[in-house]
Amino acid sequence: MSHDQSFVVAVVGATGAVGREMLRTLEQRNFPVSRLVALASKRSAGQVLPYGKSEIVVTELGPQSFEGVHFALFSAGASVAREYGPIAAKAGAIVIDNSSAWRMDPEVPLVVPEVNMAAAQHRPKGIIANPNCSTIQMVVALKPLHDAKRIKHIVVSTYQATSGKGHAAVEDLLAQARAVLDGKPVEATVFPGQMAFNVMSDWKPGDADYSEEEWKMVHETRKIMGDDSIGVSPTTVRVPVVNGHSESVHVQFHEPITAEEAKRLLRNADGVVLADEPYTPGKHPTPAAASGTDPVYVGRIRDDVAVKGALNLWVVADNLRKGAALNAVQIAERLIKKA
Amino acid sequence: MSHDQSFVVAVVGATGAVGREMLRTLEQRNFPVSRLVALASKRSAGQVLPYGKSEIVVTELGPQSFEGVHFALFSAGASVAREYGPIAAKAGAIVIDNSSAWRMDPEVPLVVPEVNMAAAQHRPKGIIANPNCSTIQMVVALKPLHDAKRIKHIVVSTYQATSGKGHAAVEDLLAQARAVLDGKPVEATVFPGQMAFNVMSDWKPGDADYSEEEWKMVHETRKIMGDDSIGVSPTTVRVPVVNGHSESVHVQFHEPITAEEAKRLLRNADGVVLADEPYTPGKHPTPAAASGTDPVYVGRIRDDVAVKGALNLWVVADNLRKGAALNAVQIAERLIKKA
Repeated sequence: MSHDQSFVVAVVGATGAVGREMLRTLEQRNFPVSRLVALASKRSAGQVLPYGKSEIVVTELGPQSFEGVHFALFSAGASVAREYGPIAAKAGAIVIDNSSAWRMDPEVPLVVPEVNMAAAQHRPKGIIANPNCSTIQMVVALKPLHDAKRIKHIVVSTYQATSGKGHAAVEDLLAQARAVLDGKPVEATVFPGQMAFNVMSDWKPGDADYSEEEWKMVHETRKIMGDDSIGVSPTTVRVPVVNGHSESVHVQFHEPITAEEAKRLLRNADGVVLADEPYTPGKHPTPAAASGTDPVYVGRIRDDVAVKGALNLWVVADNLRKGAALNAVQIAERLIKKA
Repeated sequence: MSHDQSFVVAVVGATGAVGREMLRTLEQRNFPVSRLVALASKRSAGQVLPYGKSEIVVTELGPQSFEGVHFALFSAGASVAREYGPIAAKAGAIVIDNSSAWRMDPEVPLVVPEVNMAAAQHRPKGIIANPNCSTIQMVVALKPLHDAKRIKHIVVSTYQATSGKGHAAVEDLLAQARAVLDGKPVEATVFPGQMAFNVMSDWKPGDADYSEEEWKMVHETRKIMGDDSIGVSPTTVRVPVVNGHSESVHVQFHEPITAEEAKRLLRNADGVVLADEPYTPGKHPTPAAASGTDPVYVGRIRDDVAVKGALNLWVVADNLRKGAALNAVQIAERLIKKA
């Protein structure tokens, strides 16, 4: 592959929230697409999606969908990825999958371009996994600090937007908000109860009462950083925000670091915007401001007051973009450049 | 004072969000009030407030307001408390102040009845301070664990409701939410920007880039627990919730503890409702459900996965009630019972 070439790109799950964001991202970043194939389930086939200034018709996903495809960007859930990922790879596509299906497979690299792009070169199954949204933005912010002082322990609490649960969840939030404002009864479809003007720590815990999302933050952080000694204490929480995840991150290191050093390291870090202007309203990270943009914003960088040499940070990013679609497209971009 | 007695109670700042909650709390808990004096600034004097099934007329706060008053519950900000607290105490009232004015004064006890009621007996200035809302709910949840295993380090991230910033902040949130839903421009009056469908980590940091709220959690926790060795790493964050604060709390102890032990200790703890039913939607703590109720709800109690013997918890309470008005009234109730 050379940079002058154009590529056939398939988006699997094109009608979903992340799938649509993938189409937008490919177009906005001028990814060299010779032909775009928008794939989805039978139910969504025939739907017309906007793509740049034109439109694209969704076709049904099937075993023949990947002939001639160079990059297959999957965002269709774990079971579809498990079934069709290997089919796409066998047909010769590089699969970049946004589901959790392949992330912890030792033969599948789990890649955040700013952190461990080299890992993407070794992909015996032809599949590259795109990490969980909450993990991506955290490791982009922490990698430069880990390189400098080696992270020992992370305590992270998330403030996650409803868009991470798809279109229907956002609509649930907005309809509920209107009901609350109008004094009408609140109905819940996606969420187990009232999400508008409310906060819910993960309501479906898994092993040891940690949620799946929490376990992802533990295991994926270690795999991406390439350091299984990193301790992660996660609490994942949904907040009534449309789009954009925020994280409160406490970090302890093997070697002490200061907030000043951390700011210096983050000021020019790949993918990071240092937004640490405490007295300037609007100039620090919020999800509403981050939504629709590419960077990981890091602010409120403070020397910890209890543990010497530790830090507290506030990390915000668009969970559909850097947390999903953008990260997948960036992996493809960098593969093209390196080839 | 004996329990059969009735008392003259003054509420200073009666027209504010916490002042109104104090009136409601006194009435709902049948506090033995012989006469209620609702005090506020000149601007609010003459206003009529609901009190039980009747009403009460607000009078202007002045140096003569406290004659014959047994309990003066202040919720009128720090400068009013600094000026009128000593005047009320000199007139013979027991002052219970909800502002930050007196909290760290070594001659003023800082009291959460479930935690350190004994401290209220020594009040050389005649003043008792009511702690910050975020601190109160955290120490109620942590005291039984501290007694058992001695806390070493707390990492806390808050999810604070807008009601903590008063009526106008709630109205700001609701008006902004309607504007967003209607696709109209968002105007901010109390908040520095869009609060609806958004999250803001504290935007006015103080010393060392920590906010005032964060420093309160550090210093007040130590004073209430009576242990200056407790490390607190706080990050305080405002979320688009009307009422009810939530907290993600990671705790390390001098002696290891398990989640099972912690649940046993919290099941019968004073002021706590253990709400740790992970698979039952609606039966774990949320601010919308906690709003309008008295307890501190504790859920998601998990053995930490990074530090052996540490815990993670999710703590939710009504910030206007247990976080302010209720705590103040409970102090008065227990003083009556002990007298």
